[in-house]
Amino acid sequence: MELTKTEIIEAFKDTQDHICKSLEELDGKSKFKEDLWERSEGGGGRTRVISDGDVLEKGGVNFSAVHGPVSDLMKKQLKLEGESFLATGVSIVLHPHNPFLPIMHMNIRYFEMDNGAYWFGGGIDMTPHYVEENLAKSFHGDLKKVCDEYKNDFYSKFKKWADDYFFIPHRNETRGVGGIFYDHLTAENTGLSKEELFQFALDLGKMFPKLYSFQVNQNRNKNFDEKNIQWRNIRRGRYVEFNLVYDRGTQFGLKTGGRIESILMSLPENASWVYNFVPKAGSIEAKTTSFLVKDKKWI
Amino acid sequence: MELTKTEIIEAFKDTQDHICKSLEELDGKSKFKEDLWERSEGGGGRTRVISDGDVLEKGGVNFSAVHGPVSDLMKKQLKLEGESFLATGVSIVLHPHNPFLPIMHMNIRYFEMDNGAYWFGGGIDMTPHYVEENLAKSFHGDLKKVCDEYKNDFYSKFKKWADDYFFIPHRNETRGVGGIFYDHLTAENTGLSKEELFQFALDLGKMFPKLYSFQVNQNRNKNFDEKNIQWRNIRRGRYVEFNLVYDRGTQFGLKTGGRIESILMSLPENASWVYNFVPKAGSIEAKTTSFLVKDKKWI
Repeated sequence: MELTKTEIIEAFKDTQDHICKSLEELDGKSKFKEDLWERSEGGGGRTRVISDGDVLEKGGVNFSAVHGPVSDLMKKQLKLEGESFLATGVSIVLHPHNPFLPIMHMNIRYFEMDNGAYWFGGGIDMTPHYVEENLAKSFHGDLKKVCDEYKNDFYSKFKKWADDYFFIPHRNETRGVGGIFYDHLTAENTGLSKEELFQFALDLGKMFPKLYSFQVNQNRNKNFDEKNIQWRNIRRGRYVEFNLVYDRGTQFGLKTGGRIESILMSLPENASWVYNFVPKAGSIEAKTTSFLVKDKKWI
Repeated sequence: MELTKTEIIEAFKDTQDHICKSLEELDGKSKFKEDLWERSEGGGGRTRVISDGDVLEKGGVNFSAVHGPVSDLMKKQLKLEGESFLATGVSIVLHPHNPFLPIMHMNIRYFEMDNGAYWFGGGIDMTPHYVEENLAKSFHGDLKKVCDEYKNDFYSKFKKWADDYFFIPHRNETRGVGGIFYDHLTAENTGLSKEELFQFALDLGKMFPKLYSFQVNQNRNKNFDEKNIQWRNIRRGRYVEFNLVYDRGTQFGLKTGGRIESILMSLPENASWVYNFVPKAGSIEAKTTSFLVKDKKWI
């Protein structure tokens, strides 16, 4: 039996449920609030946002499944052939309060055209305000493990893809320590079945709260001061720069009239721009900056 | 005697000097710090930033004069005909600390090609965190006075241009109460002489500190609380969205490798994104939102 779009949509909803539940347990204080929304051309979503938590200052875990006719803009930007489409996925960005905990992002998505074409895309990447080498290694190690269960070259290819994608050219720095990113995966170009590609996405979804909980539990009780907060907010400023200037999903959403509050839930509660801020030589801030380069081998 | 580019460049430098001096007097506490920079392909600039002032939390008053060969990107994006160019101008963004004082922006610029083509561009616009109708009217009235000295239709045309330019489509709101914006003005398309267009730019530069001082002096000592700060930071978030997503100068600078800290000096020290923040009905925040529409007649 061929995998149906309904099965994919339902499994993505379950993934959202599972992640929200796990993150609420991790946080221990705040709960997600849900907004249901509908798209006039077809479909809709469940936006869930948590704020003012013990760990999470602001976090969003969004599910959406939208469908309808392919617009001219979509034809041009996504180079789609066909008349109608379905796009469904789960998108997450978490902004913790403590500067020693990382921002973490995940997206898994499935795209299908009326002409039968389909593909999977997704990724997970981590943006510590303060990079700790052993934690970045552990993060990449866990991602590699999941990738290796599916294909030998997935990790190396998707790690490179993340380095190239999560990059801020005008700063000449990566958004964080990277992770994995992939797009347009099909049975044809991977040699895997559609079911396996789907399972890969679900495995990433299942792993996400474990990855985040591990990172959080290392430094959850670490003390911080005003200087750490300032640095956190400057790093968040870079996150805002990436998302507003380069992130393809954000750009596409802004141009095509997506639900703006769902798209921009990725932006932090506070961000800061200090003119020409240069960390002191030898500081932990300067050390973090030195890690924000492409093609660093973490494992 | 034909107006030379050297005269324009020197007058723009004087304009920067005059504005910095006036703003330091207004602020009364902080002074501008200057960074000189050079562009490898030709020219450079004087970036001046003030921070931690009595009025100004962060402000930049930049002068630049860059020249060199026309790149492929410039040919494509600016539709330039010719092989080499000169671009010079003064750019200002002021972010006050007190939420009851407005953000104000000005840009005056001159562009010249080796084939003899030239044009002027510029604008002034105001973004109050809290819109006060009488202050917006006074602002527009002063802009109209300067415009009227040059041409009857300048104010109405440039006011409309500002409404269209300083607009955030994904929020369906204007950046603030607008002002004036113009581009590609030449003797041919205005019926004025090159000298008059130049004088118009200088008059705007001369007027800028007066405009800002007037606005500041109305509310300089007004008390504010945490709620006002939160609202200010949310409005600043919108300012960041406009500048990173839509502002042509910023976009062009980011893509062509301009000096990043000079380009992004326009971003505020703190900005905030709160999921789905809706001001209470009848509040001064809600009243401000109601003013952020295109084509409002202020005078």
